[in-house]
Amino acid sequence: MKKAIILLSGGVDSTTTLAIAKNQGFACYALSFDYGQRHKIELEFAREIAVEFDVVEHKIAKIDLRIFGGSALTAEIEVPKNAPQSEEIPITYVPARNTIFLSYALAYGEVVGAFDIFIGANAVDYSNYPDCRENFLQAYEKMANLATAASQNERASFKIRAPLLKMSKAEIIKTGIALGIDYSKTHSCYDPIIITDGKIIACGKCDSCQFRLKGFREAGL
Amino acid sequence: MKKAIILLSGGVDSTTTLAIAKNQGFACYALSFDYGQRHKIELEFAREIAVEFDVVEHKIAKIDLRIFGGSALTAEIEVPKNAPQSEEIPITYVPARNTIFLSYALAYGEVVGAFDIFIGANAVDYSNYPDCRENFLQAYEKMANLATAASQNERASFKIRAPLLKMSKAEIIKTGIALGIDYSKTHSCYDPIIITDGKIIACGKCDSCQFRLKGFREAGL
Repeated sequence: MKKAIILLSGGVDSTTTLAIAKNQGFACYALSFDYGQRHKIELEFAREIAVEFDVVEHKIAKIDLRIFGGSALTAEIEVPKNAPQSEEIPITYVPARNTIFLSYALAYGEVVGAFDIFIGANAVDYSNYPDCRENFLQAYEKMANLATAASQNERASFKIRAPLLKMSKAEIIKTGIALGIDYSKTHSCYDPIIITDGKIIACGKCDSCQFRLKGFREAGL
Repeated sequence: MKKAIILLSGGVDSTTTLAIAKNQGFACYALSFDYGQRHKIELEFAREIAVEFDVVEHKIAKIDLRIFGGSALTAEIEVPKNAPQSEEIPITYVPARNTIFLSYALAYGEVVGAFDIFIGANAVDYSNYPDCRENFLQAYEKMANLATAASQNERASFKIRAPLLKMSKAEIIKTGIALGIDYSKTHSCYDPIIITDGKIIACGKCDSCQFRLKGFREAGL
């Protein structure tokens, strides 16, 4: 059974990506990050999803991106609400986040012998983050195959797989439902309200909530 | 004054790299990592070097590469002593380490507006680590310029600078001495013995010690 690393945030996209990798027959190693994100609650969702999908292993890497700041997700900057979608990269962009996440996935893959790295990047219903685009992922893959001992010694080659890249949010959701995902167990909101009894209320207004709602609406759900 | 990020471990190479960047007129932002390395003591040296070179800021990112293991520097694997140099990549190789370090430098650079990233990579007197070679660094630079918002919005371009890449260890040391470095204040050993009164004894036998000793010998010191 071929092994794969799956970047798992606990949201719609990464959960669907995990389901796809699983469906393709990979032995899945999930990797999440406790990076100082304001919606750290997503990790609770990621934990349950990892169990539900019976991954071989789930690692949560504790890395502190707050030391740099520069984003509404890691610094004391307000998350924009009901913002119109534009060509601009919003303040929720976290500097070099996917580059950092993929680099950990590369390390993890090298250690366990997993050469397929799955990421839920999407360049259709997304916030224009540069590190979700195809040319970035291709350049990353090229670099990865020069970066590691594994790619040299074992003559294996790393593949960065982004199966959702060209799907709309609605297509992603339909795909996931066909694969048996219960999306009520995923979390998307950047700025959730945590109620004392453990209940979570999504704000419904941040970009991530908006894409999620749009996706379910367009999927007719 | 142009800003630069300098990856600073506290060893001969990164200290020399910092001195070179400073000499080239950059405002230097130093970045070190507490990554679970067995020779964590190097961070004490990095701290003092950063002060001595009057950097604008010195950040130590706490990241745990022990969760993956797979290296003599981050797992319970013995550091090889008096090993002959060969074409093989030794067990002190840390999976994807420079990829991870450069990714943090990229995030840091994006936040402070530093587009020059200095790394003390050397491909002459080195342990064959793939992530110290020129083709890796070039591929990294290409990827970096697709990864970030900064490289798009400000039309600036990241440069990965490795001024030591083609120097022998002796040349590096001579360069550093000409720039005023006191190398007794640097640390190279992978497996140091810490004496209770704060004194440190380098093992003298790991690859890193051997390259250091060879360098000083060949520099006639």
